[in-house]
Amino acid sequence: MAEQASRLTAIDPVLAPVTEAVRDFLDGGKRLRPAFCYWGWRGAGAPDCPEIIVAAASLELLQAAALIHDDLMDDSNTRRGKPSIHRQFAAPLESGGHPGRWTDFGAAAAILIGDLCLSWCDAMIESSGIGPTELLRAKPTFQYMRTELMAGQYLDVLAQATGGTGVDRALKVIRYKAAKYTVERPLHIGGLLAGGQNALIETYSAYGLPIGEAFQLRDDILGVFGDPAETGKPAGDDLREGKRTLLVALAFERAGPAQRDLLEQSLGDRTLDDQGVDALRAVLVETDALAAVEALIERLTAGALHALDGGNVVGDAREALRELAVAATMRAG
Amino acid sequence: MAEQASRLTAIDPVLAPVTEAVRDFLDGGKRLRPAFCYWGWRGAGAPDCPEIIVAAASLELLQAAALIHDDLMDDSNTRRGKPSIHRQFAAPLESGGHPGRWTDFGAAAAILIGDLCLSWCDAMIESSGIGPTELLRAKPTFQYMRTELMAGQYLDVLAQATGGTGVDRALKVIRYKAAKYTVERPLHIGGLLAGGQNALIETYSAYGLPIGEAFQLRDDILGVFGDPAETGKPAGDDLREGKRTLLVALAFERAGPAQRDLLEQSLGDRTLDDQGVDALRAVLVETDALAAVEALIERLTAGALHALDGGNVVGDAREALRELAVAATMRAG
Repeated sequence: MAEQASRLTAIDPVLAPVTEAVRDFLDGGKRLRPAFCYWGWRGAGAPDCPEIIVAAASLELLQAAALIHDDLMDDSNTRRGKPSIHRQFAAPLESGGHPGRWTDFGAAAAILIGDLCLSWCDAMIESSGIGPTELLRAKPTFQYMRTELMAGQYLDVLAQATGGTGVDRALKVIRYKAAKYTVERPLHIGGLLAGGQNALIETYSAYGLPIGEAFQLRDDILGVFGDPAETGKPAGDDLREGKRTLLVALAFERAGPAQRDLLEQSLGDRTLDDQGVDALRAVLVETDALAAVEALIERLTAGALHALDGGNVVGDAREALRELAVAATMRAG
Repeated sequence: MAEQASRLTAIDPVLAPVTEAVRDFLDGGKRLRPAFCYWGWRGAGAPDCPEIIVAAASLELLQAAALIHDDLMDDSNTRRGKPSIHRQFAAPLESGGHPGRWTDFGAAAAILIGDLCLSWCDAMIESSGIGPTELLRAKPTFQYMRTELMAGQYLDVLAQATGGTGVDRALKVIRYKAAKYTVERPLHIGGLLAGGQNALIETYSAYGLPIGEAFQLRDDILGVFGDPAETGKPAGDDLREGKRTLLVALAFERAGPAQRDLLEQSLGDRTLDDQGVDALRAVLVETDALAAVEALIERLTAGALHALDGGNVVGDAREALRELAVAATMRAG
């Protein structure tokens, strides 16, 4: 980031807030994807070294890009307890000037800052010091991961636009937007950078996909029932945005007529008050959608740990991945 | 694109419109950046081959990403004579449903499709068949180019938001958003992929920067005075968007009080009618801003061709770059 900051301010000092905002944004992350990438490398028997730290950290820039663009698409005001990037850059609004212009500028800045993070993640992994051959063995997977992430995001916003309620669609969004992107692909990238063989890559899938799905299901639950002090997002935001999670899809499937009416009227209503949020939460509990998702998280995690035990992950990596599985699926924020 | 299309539809058939839209978008481009990249390779003495065609073509995906995001930021309705991507994907609006949701979906789709193009350009150059060592010699420049492009875009939208009128700022935007990105860096990338030496890279800068600046100045003139049938954009759009070009900056510098009032009131007024556009055009002519920009284009092109003649560009590339210089700066659309 220091390198990118000096490159940008050499172009023009007014660009300083761009790298400051990214640096600040990166501060608050859970760094799960770099962790899985790092342990993917170690699990193939490669040693701890600065090169894999840099390569793995590049995934946090991809995550920053995805979140900055995601917040703009959802028009979310808050991320990690702070104003989202498009809100931050629209702030001069408050000190006068043309309000419309500054709101537009906030959106434009968020698009461009996300684009910069997308480019910087390539630049970072490429300059990690890992050799050209090893790097280009992992790069196709790195690119698939980005395509899968954006495909998942597209399916997600399409479902929001069409008001889709299906369980199958919700599961597909989870698979591409979260399971592959958050766990499986980072493990693969670490493994491929280290020269890992097919059997290892398959173990990473057998462990990574269920853990990634469980991770996202936990995220969905926290988006509705989580403590804002822990999640960094206002309570009920996901309900007001009308996010089509598995939790919601299951509630639709199991709802009685009155519950269904409530879901249809209140989900995606941006003006919903706290009472309305509570009423929606009650439907998710009373239809047993919440209990079903909790049970699924448990089943997925157990399956992942079983695959990990049966696989050929070496050294400390097996224990680290066991701990990460718990951290990713049992967290509070 | 066929490969990306089959990857996306394997995830879900509803993703088919994404690659169709990109394919369609790529159809209409001038392909200047790939041309400069290709001749950068040939100018270093490397032979024509499929690998450089693929590597050079990847730059067209970067350009697609930049334009798709740019059109969203400017809320432009039209690109290359067709609806812009965010308009295309907001179209189900017309066939009923929730209008607001579909407009939001159009914006979200444009963000994600631009992001996909940004990732695909890396994937394409990486899978070009050029060896890992050669590729990673050029990749840092490829990444600087993206950073410079987005920095230039940021300066551009910031100037629009603040209503900046300075000549220096306008020249800086041109340098980063256009000169380096359109000509100098593509030449460098081609040259570096071919193993070109420093002297060649310097010649590419001495030729590329002025040609790139002249290219953008021509673009600015066409954005105001061009024939919509040739440019694919409605006449006067740049004036309604309030683009802070050198043409506009010079007009501000040279304007009398009445002309300045007109510029301040009408530039960036999205409701401006044809008569208002004509009045602004008249100010750009009467202040001699247009004549000054035309003279500058001529001077820059002459300087670039002089540098080309004095440099060590080999083979057919010298003649091709001479022709490209004319095509880029004397075009009508």
